[in-house]
Amino acid sequence: MSDQQKDTLGKFRETLHKISSYNEALGVLYWDLRTGAPRKGMDTRSEAIGALSGDMFKLSTSPELGEWLSRLEEDDIYESLSEIDRKLVDETRKEYDRSVKIPPKLYEEYVVLASQSESKWEEAKAENDYAGFQPYLEKVIQYTNQFIDLWGAKETRYDTLLDQYEPGMTVKELDGVFGGLRSELVYLSAKIAASPHQPDTSFLRQKYDKAAQKDFSLYILKQMGYDFDAGRLDESAHPFATGLNPGDVRITTRYLEDDVTSALFGTIHEGGHALYEQNISRSLVGTPLCTGTSMGIHESQSRFWENVIGRSRPFWNRYFGELQARFPGQLDVSVDGFYRGNNTVAPSLIRIEADELTYNLHIIIRYEMEKLIFNEGAKAAELPELWNAKYKEYLGVEPASYADGVMQDVHWSGGAFGYFPSYSLGNMYAAQFAVAMEREMPEMWTKVGAGELHPIKDWLTERIYQYGKLRTPSELIKNVTGEPLNPQYLVQYLTKKYTDIYKL
Amino acid sequence: MSDQQKDTLGKFRETLHKISSYNEALGVLYWDLRTGAPRKGMDTRSEAIGALSGDMFKLSTSPELGEWLSRLEEDDIYESLSEIDRKLVDETRKEYDRSVKIPPKLYEEYVVLASQSESKWEEAKAENDYAGFQPYLEKVIQYTNQFIDLWGAKETRYDTLLDQYEPGMTVKELDGVFGGLRSELVYLSAKIAASPHQPDTSFLRQKYDKAAQKDFSLYILKQMGYDFDAGRLDESAHPFATGLNPGDVRITTRYLEDDVTSALFGTIHEGGHALYEQNISRSLVGTPLCTGTSMGIHESQSRFWENVIGRSRPFWNRYFGELQARFPGQLDVSVDGFYRGNNTVAPSLIRIEADELTYNLHIIIRYEMEKLIFNEGAKAAELPELWNAKYKEYLGVEPASYADGVMQDVHWSGGAFGYFPSYSLGNMYAAQFAVAMEREMPEMWTKVGAGELHPIKDWLTERIYQYGKLRTPSELIKNVTGEPLNPQYLVQYLTKKYTDIYKL
Repeated sequence: MSDQQKDTLGKFRETLHKISSYNEALGVLYWDLRTGAPRKGMDTRSEAIGALSGDMFKLSTSPELGEWLSRLEEDDIYESLSEIDRKLVDETRKEYDRSVKIPPKLYEEYVVLASQSESKWEEAKAENDYAGFQPYLEKVIQYTNQFIDLWGAKETRYDTLLDQYEPGMTVKELDGVFGGLRSELVYLSAKIAASPHQPDTSFLRQKYDKAAQKDFSLYILKQMGYDFDAGRLDESAHPFATGLNPGDVRITTRYLEDDVTSALFGTIHEGGHALYEQNISRSLVGTPLCTGTSMGIHESQSRFWENVIGRSRPFWNRYFGELQARFPGQLDVSVDGFYRGNNTVAPSLIRIEADELTYNLHIIIRYEMEKLIFNEGAKAAELPELWNAKYKEYLGVEPASYADGVMQDVHWSGGAFGYFPSYSLGNMYAAQFAVAMEREMPEMWTKVGAGELHPIKDWLTERIYQYGKLRTPSELIKNVTGEPLNPQYLVQYLTKKYTDIYKL
Repeated sequence: MSDQQKDTLGKFRETLHKISSYNEALGVLYWDLRTGAPRKGMDTRSEAIGALSGDMFKLSTSPELGEWLSRLEEDDIYESLSEIDRKLVDETRKEYDRSVKIPPKLYEEYVVLASQSESKWEEAKAENDYAGFQPYLEKVIQYTNQFIDLWGAKETRYDTLLDQYEPGMTVKELDGVFGGLRSELVYLSAKIAASPHQPDTSFLRQKYDKAAQKDFSLYILKQMGYDFDAGRLDESAHPFATGLNPGDVRITTRYLEDDVTSALFGTIHEGGHALYEQNISRSLVGTPLCTGTSMGIHESQSRFWENVIGRSRPFWNRYFGELQARFPGQLDVSVDGFYRGNNTVAPSLIRIEADELTYNLHIIIRYEMEKLIFNEGAKAAELPELWNAKYKEYLGVEPASYADGVMQDVHWSGGAFGYFPSYSLGNMYAAQFAVAMEREMPEMWTKVGAGELHPIKDWLTERIYQYGKLRTPSELIKNVTGEPLNPQYLVQYLTKKYTDIYKL
């Protein structure tokens, strides 16, 4: 590499490092907003966030960065780059093109619209007023279509949106995957509903002391290998995880006094996201590769820890006594009763309250709706009817209100089309990873039953976490499991689990 | 104003607004570091702080800003500016000149040195190793002298340092003020030591539940009029207040289980700083005028609330019962005994543990030492001996170690020369404000005795808080009290208070 080339690479990496610093600062500002920043400071804080975001956007779209990219992409120099530097060039090119293709004025209009639309959604949802929300949703769809035009449609227009959250994912692949999954889950769900062996859940609803819940959550996080010298647990209205850098990955939870496991499973879920971010290789710090490789893979980790491990029988064989000890006289139920009570299945209207099985049907409905909007031109006015018909068909329930139906999620109001599939991809990836883990570590469940969770974390770190964005989702799933994404693993996992619980 | 002039003013204010946004973001990052940011994220966080600080410095010293300033300073336009805009031009000019006079390379060297010197100080203090620290201190003094040369010496070289923290304050004025104060306090302190009526303080040292201490601290903050919708109370190793904007002014405290009032008085102290920042006029938000006018005036508010109000007899007449109720069976002492036990005076070695009276002697010693260094050329090697001699002369005590003597404070290691006088200025301003308040609100102490603290806050807001940096310290003290700074008010206040307590 010539001195001039070295200089270009140096400036390129320096700029990425700076963008990463701005990202971290913004991350702290957002975390702060959601964990107790005082109400009256919000307006001024928004201006500070606006100023920093604006400067970061300028950095990310500067003509200099474009020039350095072009130079680093020239054959002779690109070939001489390290694996990490090559990935940095590719990843930065992708983001750079995405950003510069949108005229700044259009983007600013859209940011204002999305913010207004989210506010309107919140208000209209409370009043069950779809007609009031509809014009905003129409406009958000219209802007999103403009973006697709500017970015360029892939195989289908909706593919362009999917690629934002799950790089490389296509409608073609998802249609296959979700098609099979849907019929299997509808079938399994019906069998479960017909079973006479419905678990008792009444013991879950008592008054459970918040301090004791917190104590147990902290204990389980430590058991999972969450590093408290590289994170902290706070409270917020909506639980979340945020990776500021691998040495500072924070999670929040929300304690409900009338539910002994809601906060716990939420904590394990966010803890799964956090384990991913805490264990990314230090060599990626200060670069855009220092984060999860996709929303779907990220979600696979939260769901692996929450569902595959946290809702498993061996887990509770080990930890139920510990939980009981924190609520003397309250959890008067057998470990089997407790396990079954925390693994019930029933069709419902609200996605975020759904069980591990029917959750995927909620997602499939949203995926099909989004395809209708962007590939078939469905209008905002038609969505409630389409929504209700699908809920009736797949889940056998029908919303009595918009708030319990098409208006339940925030995503569309803010333009996050293409995001929903990540949640079910997470479930499918998680089940597929679990089978690979069982194969390579046959004593896995014995370990879980003995409270040895660190080997699980180490296995995931070695194969997934450390790479950050160095491997694509499809590379990861092939490297780790030996085959591409296969929904049958999730079907088998759910079938086995619920056949046992509901004695099918 | 011509369109071009309006344009210049617009760009000028926009840049100040942006600097203010960066300041706020940095404020959150620092607050976060001190209230529980995880250890392992520190290095990356420091880089983020470095990146933002660097960009803010560039903004504050840009040639464009210099040009706009020069244009706005032209007679015809300056005269047509509003009061606030004129002050903005003056204040920005002052900071701009200060910053651009230091060559960036020199400043960077200094930042590194100051950081190393602070670390070395911490280490050397723990090992009582003045010889190890001395070369760092020497260098810090040397750089500070270079800065004085670059900024230009005022009436004396040390005046240039004083002006950083207390604009307009001079050695000439302080010599007069501290000279009188010193002899009066040495005299009063000797009389107190000789009194046979020493208060009993044994009741203070028991185990006092932290949660109950916190509950009482929150209660008192509310009584003072601290707005919890514009702030929050956290814990940190060293209590502090930080004003991010008037709608977000946070304080921290530290609960000691073996001391029932340490955290409380710390909270009231920081609460005083916070009341100042919460009540600055909203018209100053987003400008450099939206903060306290000087360190001395800021400190006058923390000390007014902590000492004048919080350690007063009427205050405890009202609140002692409330405190007792939170520690059933523990505070078996009369309100008079409690009041006296919290107002003892005794010469000591450590400034931050000193009482309300002798505290000022600690400050006067530091002031005299700093004058010796910068106006008389005293060398780092000579400081311990000078220090010890002054402690013996003014306080009658002599440090047995460097850690209890010349090395006790962090200030000099980081180059904060000229800061110490602010603390005693705060005490003097506070006493002088209190006399004006008593004159204008004769029922003041009746109100305190009845737990009506809001009128006190309103009086201070109307006369001091709202103005932020719009009034200089000397303007404020003259406007509010009708005369310039006069140390006799502090002498009278202390004499009256301790004559009563020690029956002199």
